[in-house]
Order: sequence, then C-alpha cells, then structure tokens
Amino acid sequence: MVTITHIRAAADRIRDHIHRTPVLTGRSVDAWAGCRVFFKCENLQRVGAFKMRGASNAVFSLTDHEAARGVATHSSGNHAQALALAAKLRGVPAHVVMPTSAPAVKKRAVAGYGAVIHDCEPTLAARESTLERVVAETGAAFIHPYDDERVIAGQGTAALELLEEVPDLDLVVTPVGGGGLLSGTALTVAALAPRARVFAAEPTGADDAARSLAAGEIIPSVAPDTVCDGLLSSLGQRTFPIIREHVKGIWTVDDDATLAALRMIWERLKIVVEPSGAIPLAAVRANPAVTSGKRVGVILSGGNIDLEKLPWV
Amino acid sequence: MVTITHIRAAADRIRDHIHRTPVLTGRSVDAWAGCRVFFKCENLQRVGAFKMRGASNAVFSLTDHEAARGVATHSSGNHAQALALAAKLRGVPAHVVMPTSAPAVKKRAVAGYGAVIHDCEPTLAARESTLERVVAETGAAFIHPYDDERVIAGQGTAALELLEEVPDLDLVVTPVGGGGLLSGTALTVAALAPRARVFAAEPTGADDAARSLAAGEIIPSVAPDTVCDGLLSSLGQRTFPIIREHVKGIWTVDDDATLAALRMIWERLKIVVEPSGAIPLAAVRANPAVTSGKRVGVILSGGNIDLEKLPWV
Repeated sequence: MVTITHIRAAADRIRDHIHRTPVLTGRSVDAWAGCRVFFKCENLQRVGAFKMRGASNAVFSLTDHEAARGVATHSSGNHAQALALAAKLRGVPAHVVMPTSAPAVKKRAVAGYGAVIHDCEPTLAARESTLERVVAETGAAFIHPYDDERVIAGQGTAALELLEEVPDLDLVVTPVGGGGLLSGTALTVAALAPRARVFAAEPTGADDAARSLAAGEIIPSVAPDTVCDGLLSSLGQRTFPIIREHVKGIWTVDDDATLAALRMIWERLKIVVEPSGAIPLAAVRANPAVTSGKRVGVILSGGNIDLEKLPWV
Repeated sequence: MVTITHIRAAADRIRDHIHRTPVLTGRSVDAWAGCRVFFKCENLQRVGAFKMRGASNAVFSLTDHEAARGVATHSSGNHAQALALAAKLRGVPAHVVMPTSAPAVKKRAVAGYGAVIHDCEPTLAARESTLERVVAETGAAFIHPYDDERVIAGQGTAALELLEEVPDLDLVVTPVGGGGLLSGTALTVAALAPRARVFAAEPTGADDAARSLAAGEIIPSVAPDTVCDGLLSSLGQRTFPIIREHVKGIWTVDDDATLAALRMIWERLKIVVEPSGAIPLAAVRANPAVTSGKRVGVILSGGNIDLEKLPWV
C-alpha cells in the first residue's frame, strides 16, 4: 500500500533526475475560471509530462541486478518517453511496445531517448502479447504506466511540491485516465492538506472513471472517443481503491470545453499544454458551485502535442 | 544615468505588480545549442513580456499628481499592453497610440486592460503626431517604450532575478530592438556578474543596432523586414551609450534560424514564445566560437504571438 512515506522517499530518489516544475498563476485565467488557480506545470517536466516522476521512481527503485536486464512497457505516449529517459539515465535498456497509431511526435521522442520500439497493432490484446514476448526474450522488468505502486508514489511527488509552495489550497484537481496521477495526488493531499478536497476531470467520451466510482467497481474504458489522448485507459487494481477512498468526485467534460481551456492556457499562460492537461481547468470553470472563489491547485499534466496539428488551426 | 541602485529600487517598487518568472532549462535544447542555456522566461511575465517590468517601474515612479492625469505611449505591441496594465493597477488612465497594422491579439489585449486606443497610420510621423495630440489634450505622462531611464531600470530587473538564481553565468544574451532590455540587462550584469559577457541578437532584416555599434553612432532602423515584430525600433539616446559601453557584440540572425529556435523552444521547452524572444537562442547556436560549452543566460523576452497564424502552419 502506498503511503506518504513512499511518496517522500520517491521525491528523494528522483530529485536529481527530474525538474522541480514552476507553479504559475494568471489573473486573466483566474477571471475566466472564477477562482484562483495555481498550475503545477508538469508540461514543463522532463519529457513534457508528470510521467517522468513515476517512471524515474520505478527505474531507480530496481536493484542493480534487476535493472541490468532493462525495463519494458506498453504505452501510447508520455509514459513511454519517460521510461525511455529514466532507463537512459540509469544506463539500462528500455523496450517500449507502441501501437502503430501513436502520434509521430511521441514515437520520435521515445526513439530519441534511445529506447527500442516494438510496434504492435492498436489493440489491448496486441499490446499485451507483444509485451509478454519482449519481457520473455529480454528479462526486462515490466513497468506498468500507472497500476504500479512505485509509479503511483512517484506521481504523488508533483502534489508534494505544489503543497510546499502553496500549502493553503481548498481544492486540488487532476485529470484521470488510469489513475496514477490522481491516486498519487490524492494520497499526498490526504496526508499533508487534509482539509483540501481532491477532484478529477475526465472526458465525456471516456468517462469510465466516473462510472467506476458510481458503480463501486472498475468499469473498463471501451471505445473511448476524445481529443484527450492521454486519458483513454481504465482504472487499475491499485489506483481504484485509493481514488474511491480519497477523491470527492469526478467531473466529466466535453471536448469543446477542454479545447477552450487549452486555448486559454496557451494564449494567456503562454505555455504549451496537451488536451489531457487542460481538462482540469475546463472542469473547474464548469463547476462553480464547488470552485467559485476558491484556491484551486491544478496539476497541468503534460505538453506533448503535435505542433503540426493544433486543434484550432 | 541608470545604475544598479536604480535597478534594485525598481525591483522593490514593482515586486507586487509583476511575476517572478521561472528560469527553465532543457537537456535537448542544450544539446541543440551546444551549451547550457538558462532561460529567464519573461514570456511568462504578466502581459506576456518583460515590458511589464519597465512600464510598472515608470508608472509607479510618478507622483500622485502626475499619475492622476494618466499615461500615454505609442507602441505596436508589448509595451502598450504593459503600460495599460500598469496604469490599471495604479488606477489611472492609459492612452495608447497604435498603428492600424498592429496584430489583432495585441490590440485586444490592450483594450482588455482598459486602455483607450488611439489609432494611427503605421508611420513614425503619424505615431508621433497622434501621441502629441493625445498628450496635449489629456496631460498624460508620456512613457517611451525604451528610451526612458525608469523603463531601462525596470527592464534590468529580469537579469537581477536571473543572477540571483544562477550567479555563475559566462554569457547573457538578449534580443535588441530599441535597447531597453539590452541596456538594463547590461547594467545589471556589469554590476553583479562582471566576469559574464553580454551579447545581443537582432534580425538580419533589422540590423540597425549592429550597424550603430560599428559606426559609433545611432543608425536609424529603416524599412525593417523580419518576423521579429518586437525588434523593429532604432536604438535610443539613452540606450545606445549603455550598450556601447557594456555589450560585447551584436549577432545578426536570419529569420529561418530564428524560426528554427522558436520551434525548438515550443516543442522541447513547452512554452509559447514569440519570434523576438527566440532570436537569442538562434544566435547562441550560430556562434559556437563564443558559446560552446558555456553557461548562457537568455532573456526569453515575450510570448505574444497570434495563435491563429503560427509561422510553421
């Protein structure tokens, strides 16, 4: 079970391998959202996403013997880049199973960090069978993108840094896909700022987390349809119980609202964010009954977007 | 004459009105540039540019009696927004003379801060005559975009913050248009990090500053032709002597190289920068004889770019 002790240990373990990202604010964004928003800018993290935290914690938690055989994962995106870079920093091989449908910018980045890319068809079955083969052939350690305690503890360090800088938050909001960032954040906030409430935002077209919380069991994500390409996963066996215990609610947001928030962040905060990172701001604006006038921490999860295909051009 | 004492006083005066911007680094950008680059991110400053520093210092240096009649300027861009916001923060009127050719995003922002916009033809003569009329009619204090000691001192506070965080720089590089940022930066570096050398970057299509330094007198900018719309001005009577004394060289950069640097900053640092802000990185990369392996501070001057008209789309 992940605790704040593990999250603090993760922070120490990864400190030299990650950026301490800035917390940005903007008056015009505040006016638009109807509250004071503190953005923890994980889009400015190494590899452009919070995923570097969890991947680094996992890779640097391995024994030398384990690490020598390398690490492996299946991922359509940011976790793949993060694991590739973390493995490079430790000087061990990384094997990444990526669907042929993954964005070109993400594939280039993974290859640029020196990982071996193993292509597969864009289905869960193909991902899993390809990964099994790679692990069997190489002996690499599988690092799941989110359903892994080392990863959850690593993701919790973003909220740790946010609360160090802005301790008096009323709310903390993250996006939710598989739940790694959300569960790590919820554990940190519960331990260090128990009066703050944690909410999550997910796309209307991939609302399995909201339905899972409502049902009291994990509802798989089936045929998700959203611009938020980082939020397509289902909750995991390790993330779901933490979310059920510590998260006050999950807000669903349609893509138009997410893209309006994305545009606001680009134009007024002057930072590059991907749709999955903008969805919490859209949710904050759409739920004034909870957020109005409050001090809201938002984990701005990532900035890996194909600059050739901007959604408004 | 502006000194480090004025710059420190400016920092105290404007502290509550500006953002302390982060200093960002990125390994892939370093590899591309061939040195270690520390970006002082004034694109993340209020109004999206360092201009907020000088404008705030000027506006808050006025006596109550002077301020009550408002402030006025002619500007095609970031200084206009900055003066409008600084005036709003002090609760006094702002009058901005803007050419009809100014980017829509900048006009909207100026109007959004509550300034009165006075349109004029896009010629120097029309700007000056319109400004004279506005000042005569209102009694507003004219705040020049750069040839003003209060403005120069304010711009110098960006380097002050940069050196507080990264004291051991070998080089500091800024863009140069009228020279407000460059002269303020040069004064700060000369006082606080005298072993560091200051260089500037300007567009090949607007290379009046390089020609002015070579000639030993101000050569006006005539018919500038560049994507760097913030760097069209000529040096001023107050900025030129400071630059001549403290700046080691001015590098000219063609627009293609600037746009490559712009793209690198967007894609790898995940921040929105305008061409005028990207030109120093292009210059750093193009001058390895000076920069290779060095610790280089770059003032990333602004991020006000029309997101509808990105240069690579």
